[in-house]
Order: sequence, then structure tokens, then C-alpha cells
Amino acid sequence: MAGGHPSGAAAWNWRIVLVRPRNPLNIGAAARALANFGFGELWLVEAYRPSWEEARSAVGGEDVLRSARAVDRLEEAVGECSLALGTTAGSRRNLAREVVSLADLPAWLAKRRGRKRGRAALLFGSEKTGLSNEEMSHCHALVRIPTVPESPSMNLGQAVAVCCYELAREGLVSAAATPARARASDRANLHSLEHLFERAAAVLDQVGYLQPKSRGAMLLKLRRLLLDLGLTNYDVRVLGGILAQIEWKLRQ
Amino acid sequence: MAGGHPSGAAAWNWRIVLVRPRNPLNIGAAARALANFGFGELWLVEAYRPSWEEARSAVGGEDVLRSARAVDRLEEAVGECSLALGTTAGSRRNLAREVVSLADLPAWLAKRRGRKRGRAALLFGSEKTGLSNEEMSHCHALVRIPTVPESPSMNLGQAVAVCCYELAREGLVSAAATPARARASDRANLHSLEHLFERAAAVLDQVGYLQPKSRGAMLLKLRRLLLDLGLTNYDVRVLGGILAQIEWKLRQ
Repeated sequence: MAGGHPSGAAAWNWRIVLVRPRNPLNIGAAARALANFGFGELWLVEAYRPSWEEARSAVGGEDVLRSARAVDRLEEAVGECSLALGTTAGSRRNLAREVVSLADLPAWLAKRRGRKRGRAALLFGSEKTGLSNEEMSHCHALVRIPTVPESPSMNLGQAVAVCCYELAREGLVSAAATPARARASDRANLHSLEHLFERAAAVLDQVGYLQPKSRGAMLLKLRRLLLDLGLTNYDVRVLGGILAQIEWKLRQ
Repeated sequence: MAGGHPSGAAAWNWRIVLVRPRNPLNIGAAARALANFGFGELWLVEAYRPSWEEARSAVGGEDVLRSARAVDRLEEAVGECSLALGTTAGSRRNLAREVVSLADLPAWLAKRRGRKRGRAALLFGSEKTGLSNEEMSHCHALVRIPTVPESPSMNLGQAVAVCCYELAREGLVSAAATPARARASDRANLHSLEHLFERAAAVLDQVGYLQPKSRGAMLLKLRRLLLDLGLTNYDVRVLGGILAQIEWKLRQ
């Protein structure tokens, strides 16, 4: 599975994240698909506890399920990653994120700045509702599985299988699961960005920029804007310094 | 979904055939994947009746399930097709058929003689055992989904989804479901070939060529050999005439 893509995209350490999954069969099926295509990391966010317990007894993908992590907040699941991608059936409009067709994903990844192999998250929303706008605001882009308009919505386990197949097919899966060491020129991971974002939001609240009525929508916009900047660890340090100075001044 | 593949392969009218499926959830999931990627024809061979009844109530893919055909013999499901492909996890050896990786299937199809769009069957074996040797002998080639050696066996519904995705992705699915009119220069469909094969087997029995002990294995070999010849409708007519002459002589 390891190796470079013909178009030059580096392999990534992928983390498959199921957000609010409800059906234990889907969790089990997703784990099996990960195992089939050489993916090791499964994370569950806000998984319905009984489903999660039941899924652990599923056949196939036992190793993946055993080492899966269940967390309460999306931020925990994507924090260490420098790239987060959401999945969508693409029938929804106004997603306010770049939408990449799954078949074009290898080329899209190849174009991204930085050749270093990194950790990336691929998010799947709940069976009923998909990813929420808030969840999508944590994503750099959305991956659309090219289903037909008459029947756009895929079964969760099958959607995971198709995405894992496509990434493995193009050699975009890194076999080594060693965490990458952070360098100044590397893209900042989502944990650093979220921390920066929360500090910036607090400052904007203090200076009265955020209005109670539009606060929620504005914060989603700002988070997307921050992700789109493609900040490096160095950039985050610089911006953190600026924020610290403003915070200090506001405390006076 | 219609349109030519960049490498020049024509689109086919695909028929997805589940052979001896047991789990109603898998039948429902397969139907949903067909619908997601614009496939219309689902056939079931020796489907366990209660599973089949239960699957019809599944969510997603209702139209596909409503028009699905359940038959007792594989020959009925593939008879009208001029191409039959089996699927395999590829961990088995001595399959005695050419094995094509799913990712290489578009190029393989492009190389096949004849540019006319035809009807093709893609076969999936039962959840437990996959396709038998006898069932594989009806296939021109086997398609291997490139799973990792440590976890080769896919869930049936997911395997169908991945194959449908790959074929749709490469524009190899014909939107038109009109049956192709047979021409002399077209490849013979499997019904004609099977009929020819059965007549030839009867002749070989009469002349004492087939030994009781090795008869079964020999017939599988002969059917594979016949498929590999790539006979046209014209060829089948010529061979049918030769057989008729031999049959007549033997009756004297």
C-alpha cells in the first residue's frame, strides 16, 4: 500500500473518523473496509454507546475495532491532523467548502503545498444527516462520491469502502503509522489552528466584533477562513504572538 | 454515467449477479450500491428465499430490488450476456482463469475485440465461499479487488459498491438498457455458447471421450476453453453445423 502516487502525491497517514454513527452494523462494516484496504486508524465521535459496544463483536476488522478510539468532540479526533476532509453525497448546496470529486482527490492532494507525508482525517457524517455545517467548518475540503443524482445517498459502510478503495488504489496510504515530527515549515495541525481560532474568537468577543445574533454563523465563516490560509507551524507561532500582545493590551 | 472511457473502452450494459447470497442485508446493500452508481440490473441465483423476501423491504435501491430477477441457475442469469466476469478476493490459487485487478479492468475491457457496446455480467459469489470452480468456468476472467493479504475478504455489499464505483468512475456504464441486436460479427452470448457446449459434451459422451472419473473436471476445462476462443455468432453457427453433421452420423 505504501509508495508514491504517479502524479506525485505523497502518501498520508489516514485516520477514518465516523461522526455520530448510530448503526453498529455500519461501524463494523467500516472497520472491515479499513482492514481490507490497509487502513489502521478508526475514530468515532459521539458514537451512540450501545452501538459502539455491539460493533466491537462484529466479524472482520477486529484489530481495527480493538484499537479504535471513541471521543466526545470532533476536535479531539482531528486535532493531530494537518488535513481534514469531509465526505458528502453532494446533493446539498451552499456547503461553503471546496468540493472535490473522489476520483479527482489524488490530483487534488498532489497539488497541496508541502511534500512531506502528514496525518490526514477523512470524516463521515451520521447515517441520517451527514456532516453538519459546524462539522464541515473543521474540514479543508469536502470529498464528493460521484453517485447519480437520482440516488445520491450511500450506505455508510459502503461509502467508507469506496473511499478506502480509491485512496489505496492510488497508493495514497502510508503503511507507517509513526506520527510525523512537527517542523516550522510543516502545515499546522488542526489542534494548533483550533487553539488559535478560540483565542481569536475570545478577542473578537472582547472588542465587541461578534454580535449575539450572528455570532454562530460568523464563527463558522472565520474557522473556514483560517483553514483556507494553509498556515504553517511558524505562521501559527507568529499569529499567536500577535494575539498575546492584543490580549495583554485588552487586560490593561 | 454514459460515455466512453479515455482509453477507448465502450460502455457496457452491466448486469450484477449475486450467486447464492444468504444475508438479506447484503442483498439490500448491493441494490442500494447499484442505484447509487446508476446500475439498473440485479439478478440473484439460488437466493435463499426468506432472505430475498426480506431484502425487498430494505431502504434504498427499492427500484433495483423491485425489478431484480431471481433465478435457479447461473446459466439463466448470464445467458444473454456476451461477457461474464467473476469477482474474487484473490487469495485462492489455481483459479484457472485470467485474473484482472479491478483498477486494471477498464484497460482490459478496452483491449477486448469488438467496439460494439454489449451486455456484460459481473458475478459475486456467496458470502461464505465465494464463487465455486463450476461457477467460475462460466466466466471469461476474474476481477480481483485489491485488498491487502492480511484481510482479503470483503463484505458482499461493500464489494459490490467498490466495483460499481470503479466502473462508473471510468464511464464504463451504459445508460441505455436496450438489449443489443445480435449481428454475425458480434461475440456470441453465453446462452449460445452454453448450448453449443452441451451439444459438444453429448457428442463427446457418445464417442466415449469422457471418462466417468474425470468427466466433471474435463467439462469445466472444456467450457473455459470454449469461452477463451472468443467466438462470434457466425463462428457458433458454423460450429453448430459441424456438430449437427456429427450428431447425424452418430445416429446412423
